[in-house]
Amino acid sequence: MKTADPELMRAINRYHVIDAIRRDGPIARVEIAARTELSPASVSAITAQLIEEGLVDVHHVGSGGDGARGRPRVLLGLNPKAYHVVGVKLTPFRIGIAVTDATGASLASLVLPVRVARQAPDVVADLVEDGVRRCVADAGLRMDAISGVGVGLPGVIDGVSGISHWSPVLGPNPVRFAEAIAARLGVPALLENDANLVALAEHWFGLGRDLSSFAVVTVENTIGLGLIVDGKVYRGAHGIAPALGHTKGEAAGRPCRCGQRGCLDAYASDWGLLRQAEEAGLLTQGDDAPQRVDDLALRARDGEEAVAALFREAGAAVGLAIANLVNLLNPPRVILTGEGLRAGKLLSEPLLEAVAANVLPSLRDGTEIMFHGWGDDMWARGAATIVLRRIYEAPWNATDWNRPGLEEASA
Amino acid sequence: MKTADPELMRAINRYHVIDAIRRDGPIARVEIAARTELSPASVSAITAQLIEEGLVDVHHVGSGGDGARGRPRVLLGLNPKAYHVVGVKLTPFRIGIAVTDATGASLASLVLPVRVARQAPDVVADLVEDGVRRCVADAGLRMDAISGVGVGLPGVIDGVSGISHWSPVLGPNPVRFAEAIAARLGVPALLENDANLVALAEHWFGLGRDLSSFAVVTVENTIGLGLIVDGKVYRGAHGIAPALGHTKGEAAGRPCRCGQRGCLDAYASDWGLLRQAEEAGLLTQGDDAPQRVDDLALRARDGEEAVAALFREAGAAVGLAIANLVNLLNPPRVILTGEGLRAGKLLSEPLLEAVAANVLPSLRDGTEIMFHGWGDDMWARGAATIVLRRIYEAPWNATDWNRPGLEEASA
Repeated sequence: MKTADPELMRAINRYHVIDAIRRDGPIARVEIAARTELSPASVSAITAQLIEEGLVDVHHVGSGGDGARGRPRVLLGLNPKAYHVVGVKLTPFRIGIAVTDATGASLASLVLPVRVARQAPDVVADLVEDGVRRCVADAGLRMDAISGVGVGLPGVIDGVSGISHWSPVLGPNPVRFAEAIAARLGVPALLENDANLVALAEHWFGLGRDLSSFAVVTVENTIGLGLIVDGKVYRGAHGIAPALGHTKGEAAGRPCRCGQRGCLDAYASDWGLLRQAEEAGLLTQGDDAPQRVDDLALRARDGEEAVAALFREAGAAVGLAIANLVNLLNPPRVILTGEGLRAGKLLSEPLLEAVAANVLPSLRDGTEIMFHGWGDDMWARGAATIVLRRIYEAPWNATDWNRPGLEEASA
Repeated sequence: MKTADPELMRAINRYHVIDAIRRDGPIARVEIAARTELSPASVSAITAQLIEEGLVDVHHVGSGGDGARGRPRVLLGLNPKAYHVVGVKLTPFRIGIAVTDATGASLASLVLPVRVARQAPDVVADLVEDGVRRCVADAGLRMDAISGVGVGLPGVIDGVSGISHWSPVLGPNPVRFAEAIAARLGVPALLENDANLVALAEHWFGLGRDLSSFAVVTVENTIGLGLIVDGKVYRGAHGIAPALGHTKGEAAGRPCRCGQRGCLDAYASDWGLLRQAEEAGLLTQGDDAPQRVDDLALRARDGEEAVAALFREAGAAVGLAIANLVNLLNPPRVILTGEGLRAGKLLSEPLLEAVAANVLPSLRDGTEIMFHGWGDDMWARGAATIVLRRIYEAPWNATDWNRPGLEEASA
């Protein structure tokens, strides 16, 4: 928080007005004044400015159908056309893309069923460029109407400098992927670990809207954790998202693709499930295609006991990790999502049992566990949210070390 | 962050001036202006007010001994006498008390070598009252000169409402201990988990002064974790500190006093070490007196292999827990402290090896591990810091849900 001056004060108040309109619009000026505790005169001045800038739209609601008072009311809402942004979700097996307006509503979307992981990062960047250009055209827009591109992917991602340090999509070496995308498309780009992406999107328009702190656990090719603390995504010393998948139960456990042992990923991620099934002779050696895990889940549900046991153990491992997370951080809510939940109760029941058995009794009531299915569309829309959040960011966060300006990220 | 008005703006700027004086005082006005980016006129007005209120002292530094320029300079420092506070550190085996001035300097201190854990909470509160009254008198002060009492203790402590949910000192049932102390002494009281206490003190005057986020791990009768995130102590849904000692490696591990299994505390806390030594026939059954662990540490250093193995395993267990913490939260620094480190290299070497082996390579360079010995005096002074921090708190944190006013905590 820097020293206050009238300029910052205006920025803070402007932020609060926009935030009220974004959250609750269309909304009347008097209601904005009530929520922000600003004077009606301040609200009028700020909203007049926002309307002039085209950020806010005026809605006239007649005295007609919706009854009550006789006079028509003037409500203010975000102008959907004020900004357009692009979200990209990368997995080892496909590229999902969405173009959204300023409210996060999807205008066009696209899925490229490409085995991204076997391509070099430059080729992946080319494919993303082509897909984004196509999708922007599908939305009836030109690239210069796009305010930014948010890219989400699994792995050890530095969301501050836009570098992928390790990812099942971009490989084990550092890749300046935000830079590569920004250069190709000529617009600012932001890179984000996909668990952070879900956390940001849940906070913006999903199951975390009512909370300023919560956790998201993504069970996919890898197991991720996104933490919102005091309304901001938590980042460590490197700007990197928490690596829940590489926390370890026993130091001498199963080998993991990270080169270490006993990692949660080795037991419960899609990657870990497939390797265990292969080792147990339940599956021939192969790649990490989600279809292969889908098939395993079907076999488990059809009663194949050895396969079902793998899912149960995976559920228990994720449950123990969540219990440790609750014991450590006691977030009011943990939201679980990801393809890895495809096995349904087979996985979720032992998961919830392990949570109940391992969370300290005095902490048990404080954390709610929720499951939230995310489709491809939702992922890409979530990625777009990274950019929207930055656009509508609170001014007292703007100079935060872990949140560079868009210009910086695309430099 | 609430809506800004001129009053908040003044409070923010006042905070920045006090903070600059507290951190770097005695300091010249021109230097304050440079650090806060406030205009010289604003700094003059604010400091004049602070001097008038008695919060800030004027130091005239002559052109004599310290050479350089010819003109005497006017430097500003915190007035040590502006506030007096009391810190209390409770362990199962003693009560440490310190009275400090506004700068955190100790004016008087006292250790009561009492086996607190076998007394009822009311008796403990009585003992704390007697000790505090004695220590305040020793400092040449009256109780009405005391701005607040900070109490630190191990366990599951709700620092927001001042309740001990579970503690080796106050037992397994909820105790409104802050209230009990405030009622007896007639001054506001704050309760805090002792790992949070160390974290706050390290941030205020110790090894965390240069960072806005870091972690503290305390190895004592129980193993605790204090997290500073963005300059504030991290609290979960219940206002409770992280329970690192009850995170679990294997769900089917050793039984813990919390009723669950596999907890870190069961392996590496003083409590866990003593129980393991007793079970292995290395020690007769007894209590948790620190002296008993000191004796074990001596035997280990003298070459008794079975005892040394216990410390090595404890070190490896703490190291794995810290590695998981780094993988999860990647704090730029982890500060280790507590009596449990008495075994020295016997514990710290396997600890650091386990950290190195289990932190993801890409995260390894981002976290510095430091050891910091804390004496009884330091603990009590740390407890006093809880109150001082509250007094000098930033106005934009003041309405935070997890930081009630002193009045509230003592209500």
